[in-house]
Amino acid sequence: MRIVKASEFSLKREVEYGSLEQNLAVKEIIERVRLEGDLAVRHYTEKFDRVAVGELRVEQEEIRAAYEKVEADFLEAIREAAANIRAFHEKQKRHTWMDLQPDGAILGQLIRPLRRVGVYVPGGKAAYPSSVLMNVIPAQVAGVPEIVMATPPATAGEDGINPYILVAAAEAGVREIYRVGGAQAVAALAYGTESIAPVDKIVGPGNIYVALAKRNVYGVVDIDSIAGPSEIVVLADETADPLFVAADLLSQAEHDEMASAILITASERLADQVRSEVERQLESLPRKPIAARSIEDYGAILLTDSLEEGIRAVNQLAPEHLELMVGSPFEILGKIENAGAIFLGDYSSEPVGDYFAGPNHILPTNGTARFSSPLNVDDFLKKSSLIHYSRDALLNNGGKIMTLARHEGLEAHARAIEVRLRKEGK
Amino acid sequence: MRIVKASEFSLKREVEYGSLEQNLAVKEIIERVRLEGDLAVRHYTEKFDRVAVGELRVEQEEIRAAYEKVEADFLEAIREAAANIRAFHEKQKRHTWMDLQPDGAILGQLIRPLRRVGVYVPGGKAAYPSSVLMNVIPAQVAGVPEIVMATPPATAGEDGINPYILVAAAEAGVREIYRVGGAQAVAALAYGTESIAPVDKIVGPGNIYVALAKRNVYGVVDIDSIAGPSEIVVLADETADPLFVAADLLSQAEHDEMASAILITASERLADQVRSEVERQLESLPRKPIAARSIEDYGAILLTDSLEEGIRAVNQLAPEHLELMVGSPFEILGKIENAGAIFLGDYSSEPVGDYFAGPNHILPTNGTARFSSPLNVDDFLKKSSLIHYSRDALLNNGGKIMTLARHEGLEAHARAIEVRLRKEGK
Repeated sequence: MRIVKASEFSLKREVEYGSLEQNLAVKEIIERVRLEGDLAVRHYTEKFDRVAVGELRVEQEEIRAAYEKVEADFLEAIREAAANIRAFHEKQKRHTWMDLQPDGAILGQLIRPLRRVGVYVPGGKAAYPSSVLMNVIPAQVAGVPEIVMATPPATAGEDGINPYILVAAAEAGVREIYRVGGAQAVAALAYGTESIAPVDKIVGPGNIYVALAKRNVYGVVDIDSIAGPSEIVVLADETADPLFVAADLLSQAEHDEMASAILITASERLADQVRSEVERQLESLPRKPIAARSIEDYGAILLTDSLEEGIRAVNQLAPEHLELMVGSPFEILGKIENAGAIFLGDYSSEPVGDYFAGPNHILPTNGTARFSSPLNVDDFLKKSSLIHYSRDALLNNGGKIMTLARHEGLEAHARAIEVRLRKEGK
Repeated sequence: MRIVKASEFSLKREVEYGSLEQNLAVKEIIERVRLEGDLAVRHYTEKFDRVAVGELRVEQEEIRAAYEKVEADFLEAIREAAANIRAFHEKQKRHTWMDLQPDGAILGQLIRPLRRVGVYVPGGKAAYPSSVLMNVIPAQVAGVPEIVMATPPATAGEDGINPYILVAAAEAGVREIYRVGGAQAVAALAYGTESIAPVDKIVGPGNIYVALAKRNVYGVVDIDSIAGPSEIVVLADETADPLFVAADLLSQAEHDEMASAILITASERLADQVRSEVERQLESLPRKPIAARSIEDYGAILLTDSLEEGIRAVNQLAPEHLELMVGSPFEILGKIENAGAIFLGDYSSEPVGDYFAGPNHILPTNGTARFSSPLNVDDFLKKSSLIHYSRDALLNNGGKIMTLARHEGLEAHARAIEVRLRKEGK
């Protein structure tokens, strides 16, 4: 793991837009699903997942059967995680409000859930039950009445779906699940088919085809942000335990060869210790090839002259995950401007947030924490403005409204007011 | 204005993605501004706006001088509008919260403003002072410390800027204004130049080049949604005054040839009356050619069998603006699912909301009210999750976190917990 001066470091990973071939393939899939519905969905499922799928919708019986296949300790842990995630997101709930004014005018903001949301769950090695909870529960807490899931049948080789995914979905409260993946799933959710009613928003991670398909249908439906590779920054001083720091860096590095794990510290001693610890701990990791690649290509230890310089480096990187392993982490919290999730203190290892504590693990990547937020209840709410002007309110303010309209050259706007004032004899 | 059965109507206006030439031109502009900074900005300003611009930043003296050029009634009206807009958006403010748990864990959501926001203001006939207020004030209420504006010098022919725009900006509190427009302005705001520091988010309407440039820089910065042509739906019963309905439809139609104005009613009598009134009122409008084209191409009167059917049609159209001109508008409000802004009753003409009442006039178009919201304070806030686990919290929950990590095959995640439990002798 290289040690470099913070001032000489920059992290650049390009956003993946896919090749021209991939883009054209996705456009064709979407177009065919839009025109041919289920027929096209089955065609692409056979072509890409090599499964001749029967009913697209997963039977309740299969969901019940999944419970027989998962271990008791898994079920207990996922139930408690779901309860924690629900409790955290409940605190984000918002309500419609109205402001009643003395002249009879009423202004307000109606805050209501989307009607129908689709959650995409990838198959294969990226099938994470925790992500099912993190995508579904905020929508549910927002009050979305219809939450549906799509996941490729290939997950389990035939057309059975990974039982851990089914149990997580059932625990989160999802009952409508379709065995369809890839761009064809995104197209089906956006436009609807005979079997699958269209949704208003699609969330959840996926491979490059899924990401391109989501970009393509954006506007027809809403989408969540396209996740880049994962990142962790640990800001540590000499009080930090190098074993903890190294373990946390590696927990990020094992995700993906493009993941980035960075330590920022003013302590040369800690820097050296963490470098050795990373090498030592890496040796026995089952996912060593991935983690080693990530550490090599995107990992770094940044040496700073001071904690202040370290904080500046954090704000510039705007990391997805930030751990503050310094003596008094709360005392520097106000200076941390940009980070998706902030973990404070020695016991707040990043996996605490990945799985269990309650905050969402779907976070802004690639420096977008400057302007983006963790997935949250607001992402499943829409607002409508409410405007009720009384007769008095219009009589009092109509003249000023006409003045502004006429200064913008919009005479018909002014006349819409004028026709009312005239009727009132003004 | 055609009268059709509601069940036989659908409104389709394609989203504008620009021609290949336009897309390539925008990519080149962005690339050159990114590489050459001010030099490229000046080059394109000379090329497109035909202005050899001096200082890019507008002097405070020019802003002061603008006050001499605007009428007193305009100043009074815009000040009162700004106060109303500020009051409405103040009610949307949100605060950081933390949840302190008995085992010492602390979870929370930090809710903070973006650091720097750029507001684009188009030149020429689309230079609307009201839009300056509507874009700037929510950012200001959110607490954004740096709000900058960019607007093309061509607005006033030479390199002076429309004084109404400058006064609106000053009243809203913007002091940092640059005379630059088009894709070059968007590129400068996104990447920064010698004169213009980069921003975190760009908002505000513009022509196709501005819209394409915003799409291109999305990810480097955040952007607002790309506005489509404007829409109004009036849902009316036999109690509605046909003069009012016709005037309100025309106030939308005069915006743009692609604007859409639709009346939905179960009353054939009202339908006939509104049709005649629209024709009559249209005759004397200064923007008659635009409004007539809009009414002809995208206007319609939809006849329904009942108010219920009318409400269903509204929810399907998900209009930008909705007026409820029915006997008891509040009594049907709960059934209206999708609309950007809802105007209730005879005196709540749409221009009331365009200019003055307080709610934002930047609203979701083209059916996106199904999942999008009016511009609001949240659009200028970002959230960070906060996770502090105490020693006790980790000892109590570490085992479950490790179970979940291992079920997902992420051993390094489990070990990040294990290394801590071991140190505690567990």
